[in-house]
Amino acid sequence: MTTPRAGRVDALQFCNWSRKIFEQMRAAGLSAVHATVAYHEGFRPTVDRIIAWNARFREHADLILPGRSAADLIRALSSDRTAVILGLQNPLPIEDDLGLVAVLHDLGIRVMQLTYNNQSLLGCGWQDADSGLTRMGREVIREMNRLGMLIDLSHAGERTALEAIEASARPVAITHATPAAWRDGKRQVSETLMRALAQSGGMLGLSLYPHHLRDGSGTTLAAFCEMAARTAEIVGVRQLGIGSDLCQDQPDELLAWMREGKWTRPDPAQPPPKFPPQPAWFQDSRGFANLADGLRSAGFAPADVEAILGANWQRFFRAAFRPAVEGEPWQPRS
Amino acid sequence: MTTPRAGRVDALQFCNWSRKIFEQMRAAGLSAVHATVAYHEGFRPTVDRIIAWNARFREHADLILPGRSAADLIRALSSDRTAVILGLQNPLPIEDDLGLVAVLHDLGIRVMQLTYNNQSLLGCGWQDADSGLTRMGREVIREMNRLGMLIDLSHAGERTALEAIEASARPVAITHATPAAWRDGKRQVSETLMRALAQSGGMLGLSLYPHHLRDGSGTTLAAFCEMAARTAEIVGVRQLGIGSDLCQDQPDELLAWMREGKWTRPDPAQPPPKFPPQPAWFQDSRGFANLADGLRSAGFAPADVEAILGANWQRFFRAAFRPAVEGEPWQPRS
Repeated sequence: MTTPRAGRVDALQFCNWSRKIFEQMRAAGLSAVHATVAYHEGFRPTVDRIIAWNARFREHADLILPGRSAADLIRALSSDRTAVILGLQNPLPIEDDLGLVAVLHDLGIRVMQLTYNNQSLLGCGWQDADSGLTRMGREVIREMNRLGMLIDLSHAGERTALEAIEASARPVAITHATPAAWRDGKRQVSETLMRALAQSGGMLGLSLYPHHLRDGSGTTLAAFCEMAARTAEIVGVRQLGIGSDLCQDQPDELLAWMREGKWTRPDPAQPPPKFPPQPAWFQDSRGFANLADGLRSAGFAPADVEAILGANWQRFFRAAFRPAVEGEPWQPRS
Repeated sequence: MTTPRAGRVDALQFCNWSRKIFEQMRAAGLSAVHATVAYHEGFRPTVDRIIAWNARFREHADLILPGRSAADLIRALSSDRTAVILGLQNPLPIEDDLGLVAVLHDLGIRVMQLTYNNQSLLGCGWQDADSGLTRMGREVIREMNRLGMLIDLSHAGERTALEAIEASARPVAITHATPAAWRDGKRQVSETLMRALAQSGGMLGLSLYPHHLRDGSGTTLAAFCEMAARTAEIVGVRQLGIGSDLCQDQPDELLAWMREGKWTRPDPAQPPPKFPPQPAWFQDSRGFANLADGLRSAGFAPADVEAILGANWQRFFRAAFRPAVEGEPWQPRS
């Protein structure tokens, strides 16, 4: 296959990384993938995760490179490699220290969620009672805006998400979710939130994780792409992308930890959770070819298909990772 | 005063940093200063020290900027500021983890000593029995060579220093010391070591810390500059610079910690150590003007004075901080 001009982009993966997976990214024409580095780790273990990524970047330099800037994203395109953008699903790695935001930025982190399901020091996830952004949350948003670290609201509560959109001087993202009207649940995104996100210039990445899909693992490609068409009517076709939430080759034992971290104990009466099987049409990154077919069948023009599958995230990430110039408003709100 | 074209450089200071001290650097025409970030700190407290530097860089951006690359050193010159190069006097911050070298490099560390007086995981300081570089020491040298992190042998034992010069594919430095023939003691540098350093393209920075001066605090400017002239005959005038070891405004209580860290207890029979007074002609960075006068009086040509007071370190640092290109030998030994 030929790599599309803008390159395709997956705005969220958390795979059990291997050369095979990086080769599949190349086969899929992915020019950038946002990869989760940490869920429930504090600062020090996060540094170990980053060291592991530095080793992967050296070992697989023919397939991947660190995606830290617009220049890196362009370099990935021109050298037929995948820029891996490192991100955090939880602000635990910054502890209670504003200075650690710049430290993690220096180490290559370019995306951070303010909350992961639960209350954090910055705001609230969708599973606790949401009292909105904290004062520290507002400080961290200002610092992320300054550095060019993208704010991701995927697991936030609705009030926290709406307040973060309002507080951020730069557009934010929900890298991986689906509309709540399609797959019911507070983890998904309400129309109110989608409209606020779109109005501020933000991006929505559509998730392909079965628990985010209307009919779970049995959801058809046609149903997914129809939902994409309806979502594009709400957020605009230029602000829609893919964030597959692909957890390829992960052992089932990881799932309880991903969901709950270390703050609670598993209920012995419940069987341990298992990863649901991926839909047949999105088993790994190469499913992007099926998405292209499906979106065309759902009525998207070819240019819109490429926008959703990559060009939108390319444009958005290139701007999002640029450091703010002191004293210059980032992007005037219209 | 006008800033000399190449800028002056101090290759080692560990002051109690303040705006006053940064203003004195400017008054002295210092375009670069290598500042010690950590002596006996592990990784995590070193990160806190770096966070404090990040705050200083923001607060005093009109006077200082981070010195991470040749471009930064040139930017400092063109904007009349001082590039502060962050360094470690001890390899404790990398713990036993080769991956932390790149992490600290990403955080801005550009110089590291392999040992500080005592045995380290990498080699031996001058106060323990020196069995030379360890296997980890050789790995770390290779990694520092790759990244463009300068190896500093100021507090090393002679065997470790000689083996490090041999093992390093890139020139190394002794940022702050004086010749042992002038100020007796194993902390200072033998003629053998000076010649090996010079032959490999390395730099020697002359210290102005009274315990490194022949007559301590009472050493005259003329005596210091005569010693510089004799040292230039050994290492070459192009490989000589200044590394003042200035510990300005530090409380005396810090000295025992600087010397011994936490591995021993103070001897209650001994009075706690005090910082010796600086010679009258080098109380702070502005003493560089006196050094210029003294070196001229000792017979150095004006161009050689500027070489020793800055141009040599400028040239050396610019090359030292350039990352190695994979698969290319750094600098062929002649």
